[in-house]
Amino acid sequence: MSKNAIMLTPGPTPLPPSVSHAMAKPILHHRTKEFGELFDFTLREMQYVYRTKSTVLMMTCSGTGSMESAVVNLLSPGDKALVHTTGAFGDRFVKILKTYGLFPIIVAEEWGHAADPKKLAKALKENKDVRVVFFQHTDTSTGIVNDLKTLADEVRKHSAAIIVVDSISGLAAEPLEMDAWGLDVVLTGSQKGLMNAPGLAFAAVSERTWKLVETASLPRFYYDWRTMLKSVKDKETPYTPGVTLVMGQAEALRLIRQEGIENVWKRTAELAKYTRAWAARVDLPLFAADPANILTALKLPEGLDGQALIQEILREESISIAGGQLHLKGKIIRIAHMGFISKSDLDAGFAALEKRLARVKA
Amino acid sequence: MSKNAIMLTPGPTPLPPSVSHAMAKPILHHRTKEFGELFDFTLREMQYVYRTKSTVLMMTCSGTGSMESAVVNLLSPGDKALVHTTGAFGDRFVKILKTYGLFPIIVAEEWGHAADPKKLAKALKENKDVRVVFFQHTDTSTGIVNDLKTLADEVRKHSAAIIVVDSISGLAAEPLEMDAWGLDVVLTGSQKGLMNAPGLAFAAVSERTWKLVETASLPRFYYDWRTMLKSVKDKETPYTPGVTLVMGQAEALRLIRQEGIENVWKRTAELAKYTRAWAARVDLPLFAADPANILTALKLPEGLDGQALIQEILREESISIAGGQLHLKGKIIRIAHMGFISKSDLDAGFAALEKRLARVKA
Repeated sequence: MSKNAIMLTPGPTPLPPSVSHAMAKPILHHRTKEFGELFDFTLREMQYVYRTKSTVLMMTCSGTGSMESAVVNLLSPGDKALVHTTGAFGDRFVKILKTYGLFPIIVAEEWGHAADPKKLAKALKENKDVRVVFFQHTDTSTGIVNDLKTLADEVRKHSAAIIVVDSISGLAAEPLEMDAWGLDVVLTGSQKGLMNAPGLAFAAVSERTWKLVETASLPRFYYDWRTMLKSVKDKETPYTPGVTLVMGQAEALRLIRQEGIENVWKRTAELAKYTRAWAARVDLPLFAADPANILTALKLPEGLDGQALIQEILREESISIAGGQLHLKGKIIRIAHMGFISKSDLDAGFAALEKRLARVKA
Repeated sequence: MSKNAIMLTPGPTPLPPSVSHAMAKPILHHRTKEFGELFDFTLREMQYVYRTKSTVLMMTCSGTGSMESAVVNLLSPGDKALVHTTGAFGDRFVKILKTYGLFPIIVAEEWGHAADPKKLAKALKENKDVRVVFFQHTDTSTGIVNDLKTLADEVRKHSAAIIVVDSISGLAAEPLEMDAWGLDVVLTGSQKGLMNAPGLAFAAVSERTWKLVETASLPRFYYDWRTMLKSVKDKETPYTPGVTLVMGQAEALRLIRQEGIENVWKRTAELAKYTRAWAARVDLPLFAADPANILTALKLPEGLDGQALIQEILREESISIAGGQLHLKGKIIRIAHMGFISKSDLDAGFAALEKRLARVKA
């Protein structure tokens, strides 16, 4: 008998049964009124999640596609951009910018540390003409959360730059106030806090950002936000969207509205606290100096192969736990507690880990 | 009681129940061996459908995204490209090329007519240095099918150009022999003949094409085929893919293998013949001079509003039929018979149409 798998991975996260059911309903044609209304509902509910009155755009792609869309819709050759990077996903913005011939100013933090507003201030003072500043909300590679409010305030002190936030792993898990904090563009993906399958991405775009979108001259077709903006008004997507994914997303957004976004944040924070307390009990130190609520990264004892550990747990207990990325491979484990991940899922993961940690100590 | 909807639309097409079930299974994490094997299985079965030994790449996006991927991976500024367009989707290649600053040679057919090899030959003789030639396999806007074998032979007579085919609506419905016909790149989407939900696209890329991919200098990140090629070898996608869509695609490919691809072609051809015979009986002339098997476009009697007709049928009978696009809006209807569309689905559509056509005549 196959076991019921448990996922403690930072996306895809497990799907609520009603989301899976919604996606299994007879598929809608995307040029019908029924789909148009579902699309419109989804975008309006996304405004609720983003805490914004700004327009929300939808695209059928991975979160990385939405990051590329921000680059190509906001910048022109020769423009100055700044990336304040706190891990693998911040570095991805740098790679995308370089692909388009732009060489951004990079403010880099040691992995595990949040973005330092003082370092940001220094870079901005030296570069008054920065057009776009890129941040992560949370970085799943290290388990940190950035203080976006303070960072955004800092940007405004020194420049008129557009503030772009990758909240692919943060939204609907960590508190985020797009309008109150003055964020211009917030990107996200469907498969984390949004409790849907992967394949949809969203970008909330502030009013003042559209001026830049009109003048930006990097080439884009599928990712053109102007076409997407028209689709919001028409309630009809330009190309065939991920229809089943929209059906699932609408249901997941109904669940979020039912719980209340503040309660979602609170629940995620409580699970993070619960995980940190367990980690302290079993002597696994936190990797992040500024730990996020979405995910806890833990340092493993010297000599323990983290990759072998998580592979064994997956094989023997059908529990997925993420390992470290790049230079952290084998050295840390990452336990997610966002989206539909529950306390009992965490308990199962803790038990599987404890059993094997005891064996190492013995 | 809500009626069981019938879709006669050219994508999304209806999903086989086992495909919906596969997508509703507990979601896999994309960095697991289990997903890697499903991804690998999907790409290998796609080779069977494409009739090719070439590498098949997968991307999470609409079919249009795959069209853009072909442009950015094959061309450099100043390169000469040729588009032989037979409808709205051929014109889309022109738009994408122009977005990237390339002004292709355009060979255009009147809507409803297949690509004329003589016109192609003339254009190629005058432009020996064309690097890439773009064709449609079928164009759903007009219901035509192109004779790709003859067109590809013609290209080779005059040039060494890479032959790119948009078979987004043709694959797994109309006969296509990628290797035997010498096609270099064949693009497709998941939501038509492939009987899956929309959101995945594929590109089969011939060996000789990779040389061009290496030297092409248009910018691309998410759509970079070199990154995708590495993912095929690693059995692991670079970014979080549409996991549920891959689960559905693997199941749909199992169904296609079970039936046999030639039998899929034969079944689609029989449904097309059945539809044309019905159309002749009710005096609706074919729009296409070179009709495809995937879809039948029919001219409506003067004075009959096609848009109102299909909206009424959808509202009253829950049957989706597509109308005309752009200048054909209201003037034609398009009845698809690809993928999981059955003879009984068609009968229901015919009955709904006949009832209303009789009313017009009365």
